[in-house]
Amino acid sequence: MATLCRPEVAVPEYIVTKEDTLKLAERLHAGNPQLKLVLRLITSTGVQKRHIVQPLEQTLEHPGFEIRNKVFEREAKRRVPPVVRRALANAELTAQDIDAIIFVSCTGFMMPSMTAYLVNTMGFRHDTRQIPMAQLGCAAGAAAISRAHDFCAAHPGANVLIVACEFCSLCYQPTDDDVGSLLSDGLFGDAVGAAVVRGSGGTGVRLERNAAYLIPDTEEWISYAVRSTGFHFQLDKRVPGTMKPLAPVLRELVARHGWNVGSLDFYIIHAGGPRILNDLCRYLEVPPESFRYSRATLTEYGNIASAVVLDSLGRMFADKPMLEGAKGVIAGFGPGITAEMAVGSWVTDRSQRKDGARPTAVA
Amino acid sequence: MATLCRPEVAVPEYIVTKEDTLKLAERLHAGNPQLKLVLRLITSTGVQKRHIVQPLEQTLEHPGFEIRNKVFEREAKRRVPPVVRRALANAELTAQDIDAIIFVSCTGFMMPSMTAYLVNTMGFRHDTRQIPMAQLGCAAGAAAISRAHDFCAAHPGANVLIVACEFCSLCYQPTDDDVGSLLSDGLFGDAVGAAVVRGSGGTGVRLERNAAYLIPDTEEWISYAVRSTGFHFQLDKRVPGTMKPLAPVLRELVARHGWNVGSLDFYIIHAGGPRILNDLCRYLEVPPESFRYSRATLTEYGNIASAVVLDSLGRMFADKPMLEGAKGVIAGFGPGITAEMAVGSWVTDRSQRKDGARPTAVA
Repeated sequence: MATLCRPEVAVPEYIVTKEDTLKLAERLHAGNPQLKLVLRLITSTGVQKRHIVQPLEQTLEHPGFEIRNKVFEREAKRRVPPVVRRALANAELTAQDIDAIIFVSCTGFMMPSMTAYLVNTMGFRHDTRQIPMAQLGCAAGAAAISRAHDFCAAHPGANVLIVACEFCSLCYQPTDDDVGSLLSDGLFGDAVGAAVVRGSGGTGVRLERNAAYLIPDTEEWISYAVRSTGFHFQLDKRVPGTMKPLAPVLRELVARHGWNVGSLDFYIIHAGGPRILNDLCRYLEVPPESFRYSRATLTEYGNIASAVVLDSLGRMFADKPMLEGAKGVIAGFGPGITAEMAVGSWVTDRSQRKDGARPTAVA
Repeated sequence: MATLCRPEVAVPEYIVTKEDTLKLAERLHAGNPQLKLVLRLITSTGVQKRHIVQPLEQTLEHPGFEIRNKVFEREAKRRVPPVVRRALANAELTAQDIDAIIFVSCTGFMMPSMTAYLVNTMGFRHDTRQIPMAQLGCAAGAAAISRAHDFCAAHPGANVLIVACEFCSLCYQPTDDDVGSLLSDGLFGDAVGAAVVRGSGGTGVRLERNAAYLIPDTEEWISYAVRSTGFHFQLDKRVPGTMKPLAPVLRELVARHGWNVGSLDFYIIHAGGPRILNDLCRYLEVPPESFRYSRATLTEYGNIASAVVLDSLGRMFADKPMLEGAKGVIAGFGPGITAEMAVGSWVTDRSQRKDGARPTAVA
């Protein structure tokens, strides 16, 4: 058994509001013939603010890939440990109880991975498995959950720490001014998320099944151009339409589990943008309210890449007591175009409850 | 049960001999006060030749990170599929039988990962799980084997394709002239390796246990500096001494399995360099001959990073019939400094044998 415990997410202290974003686009791209379209697209994302790791003016400068990546490393080393500590506490475990760390990030590249730093500085055992994944983009949060589920199945009783560290602002490319890039400049935000998947015990989502799906021949739709200036995010205008092929896949996965995708108790969906959420809602025939946690993430933080699913899930844990056995789905979407999906149900650890687990996490 | 079937490895057509390497070092670094030391170190690696994806003169030029990474993509798309086809054939499976692809490479960065390209072009199912790992360096080959083992344990009957694609020559940095860099310039080679881990049936190494170990506080010993010119490999002079802390870990892992590390039937060890092989031999108290497959990889191809373990293993399959139940260990070492280890024993699929499996893979 593998239970996804209450996640923790932290966003940085520097804030960019929707108004800041719109003004900035008008100032920096006054002569762009597609400016009006861009402003309309940014407005329609519904993103009210984003949080970023450096002050806005500093973010707009490009000091070179080397410095950018050093900033990533510095900020990751500073911001990840406190989030990890809280995620461990949520799971009522210590670093010594963890058997594997899955670290996902597509916005900075370190070798060795941050996993080595965490083991060396946070008291994890030196035989902890390190599973860093960098190339699944926004789908990596859900992929990490599924790989943690698999690890627990392969090593009964093992516990896995998941970390998603995304500083999208460090991939801002001042010279990219196509519509996809300018929209992305107004959509993505920074965040660090962490959660523990417990191999036994724990209150949260009991992971019961996972699956992945690659939409045929869409490799070019979401991609990085790797240049001397770093990673250039490339977004095709066909991406918002991807829920049409993915909704049946999600429906079929849930049906294979004996459930109906239209009548689940919770939906934790990657908030890539408003159309993804709206379309999926419609295709799955569920009320907009069902996706409220994902919508809140998008509104308050923007698209925080692989950290979205952890943040949306954290909002669900914080919202109200879940009923034992409540059924739900977790889905992340990213480059490939790949969907990473998990199906599970709410479980309460009664022994944990007596020990004083947070009331919000208790049925 | 998970059985690691016969791997396939292909090296590129352009060859750099030891003599080429030594002459080149003398020509390019004539004024370097440490040239003599470098020449001695290169000679003592025992590497007789390496294979690289482009002609030598072209390799020595640095056309910028963007072009380098595009060459990586072009060469990977060209060279990986034939190796994968042969690995599938070795396992007597088709692309449709594969449930997950683990793709490891630290010498180029693509998002989406090569996994998406392979699924789209080679007939894999679109629900194949994609598990790309980029940050485990030379340890990634053994890590891929262990993660494939875990996946098979979590999904009974599933089959996993492992691919290691390392074009180390595309990380050559003409301006790096410290001893570690110049030694690396004479040590690393290019290769593509692939193997299938079958969830049931199959002839090869039955994977029975896996483990990892991070040597405390050695993050800086093997690392990438990420710059506008790409990945700069940084090698500390303390690395060749790492078998001292790792040998007891390997010994203990094998003992936990009820075996004695000094008397196994096969040893597939990452051929990072001659001292690693010599030291480990000595610490484990086994004759030098025990590491003959790893030594052959080093001599003929150089250090081909994550592909070493697949190549050494391939040499073992090709060498002579293995006895049923023969016991062995697979170990990869890389940045962290991390050791990824697997323990297993030889198994022959009798049904496969009747169908005409290669005689070299049959006891």
